[in-house]
This record gives sequence, structure tokens and C-alpha cells, in this order.
Amino acid sequence: MKRVFNFGAGPAMLPTSVMEKARDEFLDYRGLGAGLIEISHRSKEFDAVIDRTDALFRELSGLPDNYRILYVHGGAQMQFSAIPMNLIGLNPAHKAAYVETGNFASIARKEAQRYGNITVAASSESSNFDRIPAFDPASLDADTSYVHITGNNTIFGTRWNQFPDTGKIPLVADMTSELLSRKLDYNQFGAIFAGLQKNLGPAGLAVVLIREDLLGHALPYTPALLDYAVYNKSHSLQNTNNTFAIYMMCLVLEWLKEQGGVDVIEARNEHKAKLIYDAIDSSDFYIGSAQKADRSIMNVTFNLAKPELSDTFLSEANKQGLYALKGHRLVGGIRASIYNAMPVEGCEALVAFMKDFEQRNG
Amino acid sequence: MKRVFNFGAGPAMLPTSVMEKARDEFLDYRGLGAGLIEISHRSKEFDAVIDRTDALFRELSGLPDNYRILYVHGGAQMQFSAIPMNLIGLNPAHKAAYVETGNFASIARKEAQRYGNITVAASSESSNFDRIPAFDPASLDADTSYVHITGNNTIFGTRWNQFPDTGKIPLVADMTSELLSRKLDYNQFGAIFAGLQKNLGPAGLAVVLIREDLLGHALPYTPALLDYAVYNKSHSLQNTNNTFAIYMMCLVLEWLKEQGGVDVIEARNEHKAKLIYDAIDSSDFYIGSAQKADRSIMNVTFNLAKPELSDTFLSEANKQGLYALKGHRLVGGIRASIYNAMPVEGCEALVAFMKDFEQRNG
Repeated sequence: MKRVFNFGAGPAMLPTSVMEKARDEFLDYRGLGAGLIEISHRSKEFDAVIDRTDALFRELSGLPDNYRILYVHGGAQMQFSAIPMNLIGLNPAHKAAYVETGNFASIARKEAQRYGNITVAASSESSNFDRIPAFDPASLDADTSYVHITGNNTIFGTRWNQFPDTGKIPLVADMTSELLSRKLDYNQFGAIFAGLQKNLGPAGLAVVLIREDLLGHALPYTPALLDYAVYNKSHSLQNTNNTFAIYMMCLVLEWLKEQGGVDVIEARNEHKAKLIYDAIDSSDFYIGSAQKADRSIMNVTFNLAKPELSDTFLSEANKQGLYALKGHRLVGGIRASIYNAMPVEGCEALVAFMKDFEQRNG
Repeated sequence: MKRVFNFGAGPAMLPTSVMEKARDEFLDYRGLGAGLIEISHRSKEFDAVIDRTDALFRELSGLPDNYRILYVHGGAQMQFSAIPMNLIGLNPAHKAAYVETGNFASIARKEAQRYGNITVAASSESSNFDRIPAFDPASLDADTSYVHITGNNTIFGTRWNQFPDTGKIPLVADMTSELLSRKLDYNQFGAIFAGLQKNLGPAGLAVVLIREDLLGHALPYTPALLDYAVYNKSHSLQNTNNTFAIYMMCLVLEWLKEQGGVDVIEARNEHKAKLIYDAIDSSDFYIGSAQKADRSIMNVTFNLAKPELSDTFLSEANKQGLYALKGHRLVGGIRASIYNAMPVEGCEALVAFMKDFEQRNG
């Protein structure tokens, strides 16, 4: 069986050992005679899965006790609606501030506008989102309900290296492409959400981490299944949840623990990113698209100095088992998404290909 | 490898051949070198999957051309919010009527009350939902935006044998436990929704069938990912969808086609249900809980005349590979969920066990 190095931005590659384990017990979950995907979300077997997922997440992340873990429908983008519905009512002014660092930050801001008074607190749109803009939390009105940021921008290849200190105003972060890829001080955040399909599991579910005191303020027309307090009360089982995604997340967390946890994976991720950035920086043939200070370690975006060679680059890479390197349709070029599951060998193979391609076409 | 007969109400058993196919290509989807679960929702491979799912669904169901097929987040219960948000604005009075035939009908009605003026058009609550209540559509106000029914009631084991003719008022049906298990005249409905996890695939996604002219009337605060018009415009790919669930649905539809389609499966389902109902009706040891005229062919619910034997019944059944026969916690007793994937042999094995158990304990 062939396995490529899959550089897709998401749904992304999962660790091969996780995929093998899921395959091996797909039809007969640990002697039950049925697959985990085929049994009740209220069975004792699934209860054990969700409890173990909670416990592993807490152990790996160091999430403080006053934060809840919720498994919510609809992926990260559904939270673009749920976050304002749950949090904008924290303050009667119904104000929130958004920092625009890319496409998803912008979609989130536009969606929030249905629910209150939204301001753009800072934006890097004028430089095509090649950086994280300067943002001074002191500029916020004191009655702002929350501040929204996007931790890592998959399309533009940037990330927040330092998170802003918003004081008493809750900081909400879309950490879809970073959660558990780097150490975080969770106390800096009021809420974090992340679709699973980058570092945590398959598509179709998101995880929400929320400080307990922020629950229970949902707007009156909030659908029950967008109300975080409903998930909290029901242990995310108000209705039939995406049991298979939670199970896969559990396997991914077990794998991450085997790797040595977040400290080890973060160092590995930095090493992987450096391999590719060094190849870009040591050549005039490749041009990085993000400002160096704000470079993502999850999504390395670059262009060829001769952009007319991009299609050849992608097609030759694909033939060598370097899959899904095409940049997002909004920006073009090349994007190497190198989430936790991408082995160092994948990045080394990409760098070797880049050097060879340059030699033949430079 | 052992496979039990899984009578669980959902997430429910999937056909073994479907499970085997998904397992065999789990790590390497048709030579790609990556699993389908690991690749982009915008890849050509996934495009082919969703297109094939659409085509097979239309072929098997005979869905008229003026109905759209949407793959929506959150399962059926999220539609309890989405249906009023999308449809109650069809008429300025913002009225809708609900027929209460069980627990899920009642949850749907309560959720809808956030969004408009909801009336209970008929209810069988006074007889503990043992039947489908009489319902006269002529009693509806002409400015009612829609009428909501639950096609099959999994907890109480009843179903609508004939659907009401609501004339110009769109009939909306939660068909979670029946879609593609029986022939339907789709023209009778304005919209149908169904969670996948009974007859269509795994949990974590719902399918919505909606008449085109009912799109585009969402209330202004409807989240983008609950707005059916957004799904329609984006071919259900406004954001990263639950690709694995759609893929599994595709495999289930291929299997259903191999079985001979809906006509064949409906006849088989009726035969399966009759085997168990005959065992109930020919004995004083077992007591069916639904009125005969309204019996479900998907969920056969019954009690033991000596209810103190229920636990022994369940535990002995489980030892014989008859899994998850426990009735819902609201009603207790026994429930055999016998969706499309349950083979006739499973029902025969259950009947044999019932007769043996009666002989030993009668």
C-alpha cells in the first residue's frame, strides 16, 4: 500500500498508525462485533471514548480546570455564528472587535455583523494579509463583549507569535490550524475553537474550549445546538453527535501522547518549518509570501520567481508522492501544510525536490 | 471477526459489505496514497463522491427535478432550528403547525417556538404516543407557513402510513428513520430532512430535500451554515463538510442499488417487521406498544407481560449476538430497530430467541 506525503491544508493527513488502528477495528470495535461508527452515542463504549478524549486533551494541553471542552457540530465556520450568539450578549452594548488577518477572519467578522456592532480593530488587508497587523488592545471600548482573532492563517501562511493581552475583555481565537501544535497559555483566552481537520482528526466537528463563566449568555434566538451551555450540560450529547470524529480525535491524542506531547511536537513542527523556510530563503528561485516575523509553522506559503513554472512544479511534485501542494485559489502559488501528522521525512523530501527542481529550471 | 446483529436505534448498523469496502480503502483511496477522510473537500476525488451521491439518491428515490439535495451540518436535530429559520418567513404571520407524535416531534416544536407562532395541530400525547393522531389539514389557518410532522417515531414505534394532504401549505417531514426505507411521493412534501445514522450512513450529518421555490426566505439572523440557500449555492461546500459521512452515504446508496432499490428494500423491511410483529401477536408473553394500524416497520417496540424479566431478556439476547435491544430510556421495554441494513436473518434470529425465551420463562 502506497502512502503519499499529503501537504493538503485540510481535511489533512492523519498519522498512519492512527489510520491503521481505525482500519483494524473498523468492523469489530475491540471485540464488540460492531464498528464504533455503528453504535449508540449513549453506549458505554462511546462513553469511554469521549471521557478518554477529554482526559487526554486536558493532559496534553494543560487546560485549566475552569475551562470546558465541547464537541460541537458544523466545524469551525459554524462557530463564526455561534461565538457572537453566545458571547456578544456579555455586555448590553452588543459590541465585538475583530482583527482581520485573512480570509477566514473576514468571513467570521461578516457573519458576526448579523448579531451586533462589529468593529475591525486592526487589519493587514492592505498588504494582502502578509503579516499580523499591529493591534493595541487599549484602543478597545471597555464595553466590548469580546475580541476575535485567527491564530494561524492557512491561506496566507501567517500566525500570531504573541497573543494580545485584552485584559478583562475575553479574547476569542479561531485556532483551527494550530490547536495542540504549539504550547498555549489558555488563561489568555476566553474561548478557543478549532475544526478537527488539521491537527485533531477528520472534518465535520469542532472543539470549543470556553471559560465556564462565559457560558449561559446566549441570545434568545440561538439554536439549541449552537448554544454552548447546552453542550456543556449534556457533555456534548444533547443529540447524536459525530461519534466517529470524536473517536478519531481520541486516537490522534493517543498518538500525540506517544510522540511525547505538545512540547515535543512543537519543537518538531518548528524544525519542519525551518527546513522549508531555509530552502526558500537560501534561493532566489522561491519567494516566501509572509513577512518573516509572522511566518506560520503550519502552512508554508511561497511562490516561484517564475510563476509560469508553478503548474510544472506541482505536477512533478505530485508524481514524486508530494501531494496537494497547490496554494489556495485566492492566492495561487505553493502551500505546504505541515501539521502535526506530517513527518520530518515529508519536509525533507519536499526540500530535496525543491532543490532539484530549481537546479533543473533555475 | 465476529459481527453481531445490531438492533440499535442509531447510530445504527451499516451493511457489512459497505463497512468492508470502507475499511479496505481507508488508508489508500483507490490508489491515491491517502484516505478519502484525509483529503480536501475541494479535491477532484471528493467532487466525484458527492456528485455520485447526488445521482444515486435521485435514481433510487425518484426525487423530482425541482427538489434540491443538501448535505447539512448538525444532524436532524439542528434542522429543528433551521426549518423555522428558513421557512417560517414564507408568510408574514410567521405561523407554523406541528403534529406531536413523540419525543422528537415535541423537541422540534419547542425549538421552533423561538422563531414564530407555533400551534400543536394534533397530538397523541394523551395515549403516550401509541398512535398517529387524527389530523385534519382543513383546520389550519391559510397563512400557516408550514406543517411539521415526524414520519416515523423511533421511541414509540409508530409511523405515518398515509401522509396528510396539506394543499398549498408546505408539509415538512423529519424522515430520519425512514428515508429510502420506503417509497415516497416527494411531491407531497415541501421539505424533508433526515439524519444519516439510521438508513443512510454514519452520524454527524443530515440530508435535506427541499423544493426550490422554498429557498431564499431565511430570517435575517439565520447563521450562514443553517441557511439552506447557502448550501444550495455552494453544493453543500460553503465550508469543509463532513466528507467521510458523505462518502459512507455514497457506499450505502451503491449497496441499496445492488439490493434492487427502494421497492425491494421496502418489501424486505415489511417482511422483517411482520416476522417480529407476528411473534408478538401470537403470544401473550409479549405486548406490542403501538396501535397496530400505526406500527413502524423500522422500530418494533414491545414489552414483556412480566416486565421484571426484561433485563434477563436483554442480557441473554446480547449473549446470543442480538445487540442493543433495550428500549429508549423514556419508555423502557424492548426495541428492535430494523433499518435497511438489518438482514432478514437478524429478525429470524430474534424471533427464534423470543420463542425460546418465552418457552423457558412463560
